Amino acid sequence: MIVHSIDIRIRYSETDQMQYVYYGNYAQYFEMGRAEWLRQLGISYKDIEDSGVMLPVIDLQIKYHKPATYDEVITLTSKVTKKPSVKIEFEHTIHNQKKELLTTGKSVLVFMDMKKNKPTRPPAQILEITASYFN
Amino acid sequence: MIVHSIDIRIRYSETDQMQYVYYGNYAQYFEMGRAEWLRQLGISYKDIEDSGVMLPVIDLQIKYHKPATYDEVITLTSKVTKKPSVKIEFEHTIHNQKKELLTTGKSVLVFMDMKKNKPTRPPAQILEITASYFN
Amino acid sequence: MIVHSIDIRIRYSETDQMQYVYYGNYAQYFEMGRAEWLRQLGISYKDIEDSGVMLPVIDLQIKYHKPATYDEVITLTSKVTKKPSVKIEFEHTIHNQKKELLTTGKSVLVFMDMKKNKPTRPPAQILEITASYFN
Amino acid sequence: MIVHSIDIRIRYSETDQMQYVYYGNYAQYFEMGRAEWLRQLGISYKDIEDSGVMLPVIDLQIKYHKPATYDEVITLTSKVTKKPSVKIEFEHTIHNQKKELLTTGKSVLVFMDMKKNKPTRPPAQILEITASYFN
Repeated sequence: MIVHSIDIRIRYSETDQMQYVYYGNYAQYFEMGRAEWLRQLGISYKDIEDSGVMLPVIDLQIKYHKPATYDEVITLTSKVTKKPSVKIEFEHTIHNQKKELLTTGKSVLVFMDMKKNKPTRPPAQILEITASYFN
Repeated sequence: MIVHSIDIRIRYSETDQMQYVYYGNYAQYFEMGRAEWLRQLGISYKDIEDSGVMLPVIDLQIKYHKPATYDEVITLTSKVTKKPSVKIEFEHTIHNQKKELLTTGKSVLVFMDMKKNKPTRPPAQILEITASYFN
Repeated sequence: MIVHSIDIRIRYSETDQMQYVYYGNYAQYFEMGRAEWLRQLGISYKDIEDSGVMLPVIDLQIKYHKPATYDEVITLTSKVTKKPSVKIEFEHTIHNQKKELLTTGKSVLVFMDMKKNKPTRPPAQILEITASYFN
Repeated sequence: MIVHSIDIRIRYSETDQMQYVYYGNYAQYFEMGRAEWLRQLGISYKDIEDSGVMLPVIDLQIKYHKPATYDEVITLTSKVTKKPSVKIEFEHTIHNQKKELLTTGKSVLVFMDMKKNKPTRPPAQILEITASYFN
């Protein structure tokens, strides 16, 4: 299991007239969590794309327990619990500063060869770095 | 079961550099589908909120089968298959103009009394109108 | 002068906690107005991009006179008052259903050759179609 | 003159299929810059709203000199050059890590009494703190 947490301050643009963060914006937070999860392993998602592999999301699940609100700082924790194959699966949780659970979610992405437009194995770098964690 | 479909033209702002619709934007489409699903029954979501009841999403699930792209017109079908209680559950599908399935999803919302900040029964109007469909 | 109007229904996601449309979202509306302005002339912005020319915005100005709110239908009018050169300039106005002026704006875009990454003349199709309007 | 700078890492969701940051998203960055400009003075925009005063934008101007791209860190500098009255005016510049100028802009906001729905003087806190800078 590889875990990484980031703090995100809620932007005004992310709220809606319910005075909560709009429910669709959590997908952005999860995306940020995944990029930073990779970065802590020394992997840049940008470099992966530049090398011809992209990672579209194929499955997203979110449970909204409590709302997040403007200007508060939330903590997003993202973890990978299974060895990445053609797919990589992230589990996400969001807590507020009082350590209350706001959101839980899951996102599954598939490694795609951009030229062939077909699923592909993860880049060697990801396999090597994650190998020590999953065996 | 009550079904309603709407057509949505993809905006440039909704794409990302993968040249697809950004995965988080489907939540917006589902929201539009729910508002129009209600409107076909003669119910305005805006009026529900003005009457003191709001409908936050508590559960969202999306499966991305094929990407949607800029300027194409997608057809979003939203249906409610269970009688609304404190919760209302929508099933969503998105097809392109070739009738290919792009996306399937589910969203569950809870009726909330805005003053008490507590779950509440659906407005009488919704119970009456949907009663004939579910029994 | 070539003018075109479209109606847009405000989405919930486009509001913020001020209960108004978030000020940054008008850029999306202007973009939709420009795409439909072109379409009325038989020109698809998507086709322009597919032919290797893109149209980034280089200047945006918006004055917010009155707010737009959730679920209302706004009318966006976009017009081009000068013959397109390397640049094309749009003037935008938004009115609500009571014909009140909500927003005025301007957007200037530049035709860019995507391969050379340099400004270029408008596609022949645009020059031909607009020639009869400006001389 | 009171100046403040923040760094912002570009999110994937903020790109469009031109591979640049979507032009409408800069409004979000400016908003973040204004909130942090206030925070450095010990003022929370959230607290201002909680006290019954809101700050809608009435004028926005953006010039796009060079595009920002995914995952890069941009530096947004926001400054106020005139004493705030019923209005407050911000000047914004965005640079990339190579110190190249990407964007310049201006945003003007008006202090609004939320109950009366009328323009109002800035909160005393803002007048006091900014008094020493402008005289």
